[in-house]
Amino acid sequence: MSRDLRIADLRITPIAFRDGPLLNAAGIHEPWALRAIVELETSDGRVGISETYGDEPMLRVLGQARALVLGLSPFDLNRMEERVHATIRPSPGAVEFELAPGSHSAKNAAKVCSSFEVAMLDLQGQILGAPIVDLLGGAVREAVPYSAYLFFKYAEHIDSPYAPDAWGEGLSPAQIVAQARRMIDLYGFRSIKLKGGVFEPAHEIACMRALYQAFPGLPLRLDPNANWSLATSIAAAPELDELLEYYEDPTPGLTGMAELAKHTRLPLATNMVITTLDEFRGGAATGAVKVLLSDHHYWGGLRVTQTLARLCALWDLGMSMHSNSHLGISLMAMTHVAASIPNLSYACDTHYPWQEEEVIQGGRIAFEQGSVRVPTTPGLGVQLDRGRLAELHAQYLSCGVRNRDDLAQMRRYDPGFSGQNPRF
Amino acid sequence: MSRDLRIADLRITPIAFRDGPLLNAAGIHEPWALRAIVELETSDGRVGISETYGDEPMLRVLGQARALVLGLSPFDLNRMEERVHATIRPSPGAVEFELAPGSHSAKNAAKVCSSFEVAMLDLQGQILGAPIVDLLGGAVREAVPYSAYLFFKYAEHIDSPYAPDAWGEGLSPAQIVAQARRMIDLYGFRSIKLKGGVFEPAHEIACMRALYQAFPGLPLRLDPNANWSLATSIAAAPELDELLEYYEDPTPGLTGMAELAKHTRLPLATNMVITTLDEFRGGAATGAVKVLLSDHHYWGGLRVTQTLARLCALWDLGMSMHSNSHLGISLMAMTHVAASIPNLSYACDTHYPWQEEEVIQGGRIAFEQGSVRVPTTPGLGVQLDRGRLAELHAQYLSCGVRNRDDLAQMRRYDPGFSGQNPRF
Repeated sequence: MSRDLRIADLRITPIAFRDGPLLNAAGIHEPWALRAIVELETSDGRVGISETYGDEPMLRVLGQARALVLGLSPFDLNRMEERVHATIRPSPGAVEFELAPGSHSAKNAAKVCSSFEVAMLDLQGQILGAPIVDLLGGAVREAVPYSAYLFFKYAEHIDSPYAPDAWGEGLSPAQIVAQARRMIDLYGFRSIKLKGGVFEPAHEIACMRALYQAFPGLPLRLDPNANWSLATSIAAAPELDELLEYYEDPTPGLTGMAELAKHTRLPLATNMVITTLDEFRGGAATGAVKVLLSDHHYWGGLRVTQTLARLCALWDLGMSMHSNSHLGISLMAMTHVAASIPNLSYACDTHYPWQEEEVIQGGRIAFEQGSVRVPTTPGLGVQLDRGRLAELHAQYLSCGVRNRDDLAQMRRYDPGFSGQNPRF
Repeated sequence: MSRDLRIADLRITPIAFRDGPLLNAAGIHEPWALRAIVELETSDGRVGISETYGDEPMLRVLGQARALVLGLSPFDLNRMEERVHATIRPSPGAVEFELAPGSHSAKNAAKVCSSFEVAMLDLQGQILGAPIVDLLGGAVREAVPYSAYLFFKYAEHIDSPYAPDAWGEGLSPAQIVAQARRMIDLYGFRSIKLKGGVFEPAHEIACMRALYQAFPGLPLRLDPNANWSLATSIAAAPELDELLEYYEDPTPGLTGMAELAKHTRLPLATNMVITTLDEFRGGAATGAVKVLLSDHHYWGGLRVTQTLARLCALWDLGMSMHSNSHLGISLMAMTHVAASIPNLSYACDTHYPWQEEEVIQGGRIAFEQGSVRVPTTPGLGVQLDRGRLAELHAQYLSCGVRNRDDLAQMRRYDPGFSGQNPRF
């Protein structure tokens, strides 16, 4: 191997891709979702890639971190983390999306570490001829299961920069069942998650019951995204008892979740009340949650996700995985790390079926029976399609979106939308 | 790389090497120290090595674990750990040495994982052409500092299977200072640890004061090995205040250490009250200790040591490293992992200067200004000397020692030696 190889260039390319009118607790997805593609190039011309958030504060922070990674060896993960944590600070006045931990600027250093780490591991794998999972201790499974991630949705965006998606409206129990059916027919998923916190709890519970009846035996999850009060969450619990494998973030805050835990036999899951190792330190022992949703993008990388997995094993928490709107580079990074973790005991979340575009060679990644096969080729196992990258970057330049704002978008549909949380 | 390589053979060779008459809380070292050399051989004839405990229960457990590693790829660290933890149990009736966590049979699975992991990482490094440290995220330092590890000692063993060592008697303050002087002259160490718990605390404190005066500015540590009562430990603290960088395991048990912590401004260090990730879970938050001594041999390997380091950073504990009598393979494994951990904030312990023999090609590893240079050659960076291995194995066969027993050995010097703990 070339021990003297150094990282000579960093390129950050913001991209925008089409995204559906998906409803959530905060509002509704805009027609364009943003990501950033990070490329680290070595002096001998190898390119390692990763995918991360594409909002303006993140782009700024990545730019600030440029000098921290240039000149390092692709093997210098520990030095990179040390430098980033010593230098990168929260952004004052950053636009944050309260319900999305990935937008929190307090996680800037962790987000940068993750972006750099994945690209550096991609380089390591290329240099060594090993898939990333082998650099993470090897795969304990050959394919990683994902769940069918359902959303309440409108048939069309309020503005129409492109033709409507093929999924149609998803509001009623029958439409949600049809959405699940289509997604399972297309991809073979063996568990189902519904993003809730959108409509009256009784309606969302009716949707879960319809799914339960339509897909007997398939594990189900509901995620009201902290949009239910503690009282509402407690009241809903008995009805959800027989329906769910876990009850994800119904109510805000660790204290609320801990109180709710006393009133339900359902395991509570979170990607909201424990979102950093520091929060884990205080939160794990409270018994508030029984399942933790990891996300390498904001926890600090694939290795930190493995640390988190060891902590979950130690504190006897189950482990699943959170997602945001993303493309195939993220999906592959998620797949490598998930394959390496014995106690990743639940199918991972992914927004991938909601995206149509891609930025990697070969186009969209295939699911086989709901799972993604763990790559055995060097590095991440996917390469940038520079033509597609240029197109998606052009979309970024022209779309006008610079920070995700589901609330403002929702107010275009409903000027009186409060955005208050918890709303039910 | 050869992804299809499989581990085809496991060889476990117990060895015995000469060891000095070193005194400790439990008694005195026997003339022979035991280790086991683990070799994993791939189908194409590559050999990965590690060094671990050589007592009979450990040899038995390693033998039981043979089937768990054969057939795996050297990259299957996660699968190996999963199998070992699922299968290897504590040994009923095992000989345990209370003060040495490495002898505890409850740690059998962790000890086996560590032995296999180091040898598998050595294989990975050889296959990939990368030093182990690069497979652990890269070195944050080019050399790893060790401390001068002083022992009270007699000039000679009670039996003399070989000529006395060159260190002479080490009982009085002046002799301890001379021992430190010799060790520092030979190896350049820049911090000093005294293994205490042997004589009256006043005498050991006098030794520390003599070291303090003889080596101004050098960080000092005293390790009474849990042989002081809580009252004794509290009473000694003010006298040690200005002398020590940390106060290691003066008194037994987490509760005792937590109580002591209220009475001293000295950071308390331990390799006795928190010795597993599970003990960390309960113990870290008590505030009983401020410095944790890792030891990959019984914590479960180099990657678990890295996890422990992240936990220490999170719980705001300093980190140092514990040792037992060992040879160069262990020293190299310690050096690789220590080089990868930013917050390994103290010089590591090592018994290495007390050993004269070696089992690796090229003989004894050199210290430069108290540090071991981190290897840049593939794998561990050291290879077995098969001639020396055969000799040390022959010594094992003839020496008669099968389980370390410092107490029985001490009673040969002093039939009335109680071995009671804490004794002072």
